[in-house]
Amino acid sequence: MSAALPPRGFPPDEFHARRDRAQALMAEADLDALLLTTEPDIRWFTGFLTRFWESPTRPWFLIVPASGDPVAVIPAIGEALMRATWLSDIRTWPSPAPGDDGVGLLAATLAELTPPSARIGTPSGLESHLRMPLDAWARLGEALAPRRLAGDAGALRRLRLIKSDREVEKIRAACAIAGRAFARIGQEAREGDPLERVFRRFQALCLDEGADWVAYLAGGAGQGGYADVISPATDTPLAQGDVLMLDAGVVHDGHFCDYDRNFSVGSPAPETAAAHARLLAATEAGFAAARPGAAAADLFHAMDAVLTGGAGTAETGRLGHGLGTQLTEWPSLLPHDGTVLEPGMVLTLEPGLQTVPGRLMVHEENIVIRDRGAEWLSPLASPRIPTLGEAP
Amino acid sequence: MSAALPPRGFPPDEFHARRDRAQALMAEADLDALLLTTEPDIRWFTGFLTRFWESPTRPWFLIVPASGDPVAVIPAIGEALMRATWLSDIRTWPSPAPGDDGVGLLAATLAELTPPSARIGTPSGLESHLRMPLDAWARLGEALAPRRLAGDAGALRRLRLIKSDREVEKIRAACAIAGRAFARIGQEAREGDPLERVFRRFQALCLDEGADWVAYLAGGAGQGGYADVISPATDTPLAQGDVLMLDAGVVHDGHFCDYDRNFSVGSPAPETAAAHARLLAATEAGFAAARPGAAAADLFHAMDAVLTGGAGTAETGRLGHGLGTQLTEWPSLLPHDGTVLEPGMVLTLEPGLQTVPGRLMVHEENIVIRDRGAEWLSPLASPRIPTLGEAP
Repeated sequence: MSAALPPRGFPPDEFHARRDRAQALMAEADLDALLLTTEPDIRWFTGFLTRFWESPTRPWFLIVPASGDPVAVIPAIGEALMRATWLSDIRTWPSPAPGDDGVGLLAATLAELTPPSARIGTPSGLESHLRMPLDAWARLGEALAPRRLAGDAGALRRLRLIKSDREVEKIRAACAIAGRAFARIGQEAREGDPLERVFRRFQALCLDEGADWVAYLAGGAGQGGYADVISPATDTPLAQGDVLMLDAGVVHDGHFCDYDRNFSVGSPAPETAAAHARLLAATEAGFAAARPGAAAADLFHAMDAVLTGGAGTAETGRLGHGLGTQLTEWPSLLPHDGTVLEPGMVLTLEPGLQTVPGRLMVHEENIVIRDRGAEWLSPLASPRIPTLGEAP
Repeated sequence: MSAALPPRGFPPDEFHARRDRAQALMAEADLDALLLTTEPDIRWFTGFLTRFWESPTRPWFLIVPASGDPVAVIPAIGEALMRATWLSDIRTWPSPAPGDDGVGLLAATLAELTPPSARIGTPSGLESHLRMPLDAWARLGEALAPRRLAGDAGALRRLRLIKSDREVEKIRAACAIAGRAFARIGQEAREGDPLERVFRRFQALCLDEGADWVAYLAGGAGQGGYADVISPATDTPLAQGDVLMLDAGVVHDGHFCDYDRNFSVGSPAPETAAAHARLLAATEAGFAAARPGAAAADLFHAMDAVLTGGAGTAETGRLGHGLGTQLTEWPSLLPHDGTVLEPGMVLTLEPGLQTVPGRLMVHEENIVIRDRGAEWLSPLASPRIPTLGEAP
């Protein structure tokens, strides 16, 4: 483990700025409050960071009123940790409470914070979900009347799309941790090693290099490519001619990297070496296109031109996406996505191509949009595919 | 790493039995199909295992019809992996597709599989949520008319509450992996080590002992106890007199353990030793009460009698819970939970007590209910709190 890490958490002014930006959007959208239920949304406003969300049992709520600070309505088990954030108004109930698991307290709090005519917005668009039971959601709607539940008019998407410099530094730190682990796995995995051992070893290296945890690891290995990019490991040993891919979502202080590396087991076949070089060329083309004012679709087409000569489709559905508080965020690099890039957006560039029928290779890097163009957050790979050792 | 692990996955007859149990409950509840959207529910019926659910971008759907096999309606990126399961009817769309991210295909598939009068059930009760955007949910309801969306009448809860022997063996394997890691961290963590280093090292030990991944780790350290049980690590060094607690959710083949261990940094104060012994006595009392026909509440009261003499409340809201495909599942060990225990239920026993004002100690073990009583799945801790080394 090495390299200095940015300080943990954020100072209060970071959260004040987020609150102010949110309340400006809410005023535009005629929303009297935001109601948030998911880990990344609640953490974005509060700094409340815990892996306890892995437990689906208890619902958690955050209210962002039209003015004033957010109010947490949460299970008592989270009170001590929420008190360590910048929030002062924290209301709890002894969850789990099968009869009324927070809905009554939430409705009463919303009634206190909003007028009877209120429209209360909750994220309802692409990439969002509601983290509370549907039955409780229906009861909340009844309890709030005449207040109305509505969508958030895309407020959370717009807010979280733009990262502060402090967020970018946390993402950069996560990228650096994964980069050091990738450098070491290249020396440790070799022909004959079962893929599941390589997965375990890589995760341990990420931890050794400073990861708080490894939220995501997928990949594959196969002759000249792999069948998909989302599989867990099997016990199949690495073989000569395999391409091994590891795709890592490493967490530092609640912020993610998301990028992969490909390795050739033994010397690469010429087709494998060429595919890797083309993926890197596509990545560089995406990078060159990534500047303020460009659309997400422009990055797609810049990469697609290198990959296919402009076929306009992607093996994995898209050629990259947003990144930050979650492994994947808006926008998607799709042929028709008109999202205009702005400074502070963090993106993955993720070109893929079919190498032989039914087999892929995918490469991925992480970037941030700056005033004059893009900046690498992950340590850019070489066009030459790295080689893993053969069996001793 | 040591010890044989059970084979990965399940043979088709496991899934046939699950399908048949589901369709019997659906007939009882007058449901013409189940619509499932979450990772554990979809995996329970299919065996589809991937960490890709960490990405919130794409929705995934599984339909369980009134008769016949489940039908997957999923993003194309998952097709290769879903084809490796026992399912044969797999329908895909090129997600992400901002205009219609699967709703049209899902509605058409449901219309093909159910009569116009159909009631389609989706989990809506405690501990459930809907993993798709609310806007898409509303559009689905409209597209399905005159078919109606309804709750699942508790079907998923009833199905997943009872584990097969094969599931129990996977949970036991996860418990054993964590047990070997706990045994080693006791020799490695010592006075002066920052808590975040201990967390990293423990996760690496779990991987070294065979974990596929470490889905959950929380804990704390403080003089005579800790302020809460859900916090991530800080850089505070362990000090003489601290109680260190590590609470681990280790995954083996998609199945979880969830239990903790407490350690005393240096020789324990008499109060710490006594608190630990009392927690173990409460755990044993819960174990003795855990047999078919007993209610979840009986386990609560058996433990509470030892902890408080029968106060009837719990510091963390409950004194244990279900476990299996997720870190926490139904039921909760609460004072009034009438869930009747049956063979095949896997539970945690998780007694806690306040040691000094604002500080807790919590102990946790995992058990399975058998015909004649309970059986330990985690390696039961000693009533004597283990001691970590002092600074050299």
